[in-house]
Amino acid sequence: MAPVTNGRLLFNEVPTGYPEPGKTTVYDPLQTIDLENVPLNGGVLIKTLVLSIDPYLRGRMRDVKVTTYYNEFQLGKPIDNFGLGVILRSEDPSFEQGDHVFSNELPFQHYSIFKKQNLGTLRVFTNEEKLPWSAYVGVCGIPGMFQTFVIFSSKTAYMAWKEYAYAKKGEVAYVTAGSGAVGCLVIQLAKADGLKVIASAGTDKKVAYLRELGADVAFNYKTVPVNKVLQNEGPIDIYWDNVGGESFEAAIATANRFARFIECGAISGYNTQNPYHVKNLELIVRKELKISGFIVDSLYPKYEEQFFKEFPKKVASGEIKYSEDVTEGLENAGQAILDVQIGRNNGKKVIRVASE
Amino acid sequence: MAPVTNGRLLFNEVPTGYPEPGKTTVYDPLQTIDLENVPLNGGVLIKTLVLSIDPYLRGRMRDVKVTTYYNEFQLGKPIDNFGLGVILRSEDPSFEQGDHVFSNELPFQHYSIFKKQNLGTLRVFTNEEKLPWSAYVGVCGIPGMFQTFVIFSSKTAYMAWKEYAYAKKGEVAYVTAGSGAVGCLVIQLAKADGLKVIASAGTDKKVAYLRELGADVAFNYKTVPVNKVLQNEGPIDIYWDNVGGESFEAAIATANRFARFIECGAISGYNTQNPYHVKNLELIVRKELKISGFIVDSLYPKYEEQFFKEFPKKVASGEIKYSEDVTEGLENAGQAILDVQIGRNNGKKVIRVASE
Repeated sequence: MAPVTNGRLLFNEVPTGYPEPGKTTVYDPLQTIDLENVPLNGGVLIKTLVLSIDPYLRGRMRDVKVTTYYNEFQLGKPIDNFGLGVILRSEDPSFEQGDHVFSNELPFQHYSIFKKQNLGTLRVFTNEEKLPWSAYVGVCGIPGMFQTFVIFSSKTAYMAWKEYAYAKKGEVAYVTAGSGAVGCLVIQLAKADGLKVIASAGTDKKVAYLRELGADVAFNYKTVPVNKVLQNEGPIDIYWDNVGGESFEAAIATANRFARFIECGAISGYNTQNPYHVKNLELIVRKELKISGFIVDSLYPKYEEQFFKEFPKKVASGEIKYSEDVTEGLENAGQAILDVQIGRNNGKKVIRVASE
Repeated sequence: MAPVTNGRLLFNEVPTGYPEPGKTTVYDPLQTIDLENVPLNGGVLIKTLVLSIDPYLRGRMRDVKVTTYYNEFQLGKPIDNFGLGVILRSEDPSFEQGDHVFSNELPFQHYSIFKKQNLGTLRVFTNEEKLPWSAYVGVCGIPGMFQTFVIFSSKTAYMAWKEYAYAKKGEVAYVTAGSGAVGCLVIQLAKADGLKVIASAGTDKKVAYLRELGADVAFNYKTVPVNKVLQNEGPIDIYWDNVGGESFEAAIATANRFARFIECGAISGYNTQNPYHVKNLELIVRKELKISGFIVDSLYPKYEEQFFKEFPKKVASGEIKYSEDVTEGLENAGQAILDVQIGRNNGKKVIRVASE
């Protein structure tokens, strides 16, 4: 068989504002790969099926000199993220042709070789984590495929809520980016704990979705000032922050004494060199606020077992609602990344790179 | 006996900047009181001996419409704070003439009547809290007097350190306002836990005191940029914040992953309508920072017993070092309040209102 195209989404330039497709990332269709003969040296060859697009990717598009705690993308190389593929060839006994595998670092390219020393990062879809995969019906015909991404977002929502919310029935929670992959789950967790939930999103269509999810108060932050809503519907006891900036300030201003701030993201500041400056930080002391930034990996050791016991079956049974937003084709991934930064997605954004 | 002057320090005007003596507060020498005949209606008459001056007083000088969790001062009335007095007359069997009493809300005036319903807020100096008062020698000749204030500041340092520091030997702590009433104790607590301690203050004399207290790195933040020091001597794991603003930003910038921020005060923002705007809050997520604002009262239930078991004897024995800064005369209290806001005090500031 002749070599086939191995299209790749390359990291091309560190952005100062929004990540522009064709500039920040460039789709390169020039590389080819000989699927039958490319040497594996004890590794595996994976065909990429699905890739996850998440807000935090913006944070990886940075100058290598800036220290944070996830890897930055390398200029000129494909970006990577959580993704799903199928094994085409394997020289390792742990993997067989046809196995579906999940990776936290799947390159944005059609075909990838995982070297022998990196095979430990791949997870085959078996029941090793006691997930009832067979009970799932994936929307793309691959059982469990999208659920894998649901599970990832769910972990973020579930574990941080357990660790930091200290939710008490009757309290008030404010959830930003409520229609996003994590926010939509937080709304449902908060309702399950008996809270009044205020949630915001950036389009009227999304606001309607927030109500479907159970939010008691839902509003479009682009047309209604957040501080007005919180003044009327607060004070708030829990603030789930996906956005930072002005929303963070309004949450501080209307927080109850001892309120908990769960800092999951700050997307309002990701795409500008002049983020909004919060003006009322001195209230952190007076209101005795507890503000917890987190990256979900840090919570795995404490909550992973409990999570898998409780959560996946709720997702599978539909008790937990969830929406996906699929973009077709790796060549459109740069646009999908931008859409998530702008908030144009409707639910969890994924790229379908290929069918089986 | 003829009526005597009952001088008072009145709250005169809500300040927008620093609290100016003669403007924000006014000393009023016009009121008189007939100590022998003033009706007590079942209460007690107290002669004020010592009053405490603390940074947080600035927060009580505010518009009543602003919600916080300690009482605002009333315009035209004396301000109040922790203080010590002696009972001149009593119509309640729990108090006798000559008893020394401590109050959290002693008015800034020479003589005060505490009504029957407010007597529960007074604490007589006995051993009811198992303090070895008799072992103390007060610098003004009243055993235990200044120690009472030491104990208050100590509680703040001790309890919040226990609750929020999660100190591990070998970590690095940065303590702001290190020569202040609370900061000087935090330095010593951190050293006792085996940490490297970086501490700052606003004069070279204070910096020398920080070194005496055991700080490994001490610097004058007015002459050396805090971010430079933290870049060289950090990264930091614990940030004890008494000041906020630029220092908070530098601490975020040089914080290690999982650093703990103990938010005790934000004095840099108390006296300006345009506080410094922290520009790097988005790092709270990426660095997984835990930021805890607190008012010490909230920690009493959990730590009071442990505190009294451990701490006072260390203060009494001199194992814990402490310095006091005494201003003579209630008429100078307005200036003393300003001095503490500016940082002109050397150690815990108290007003000696009268001798016995």
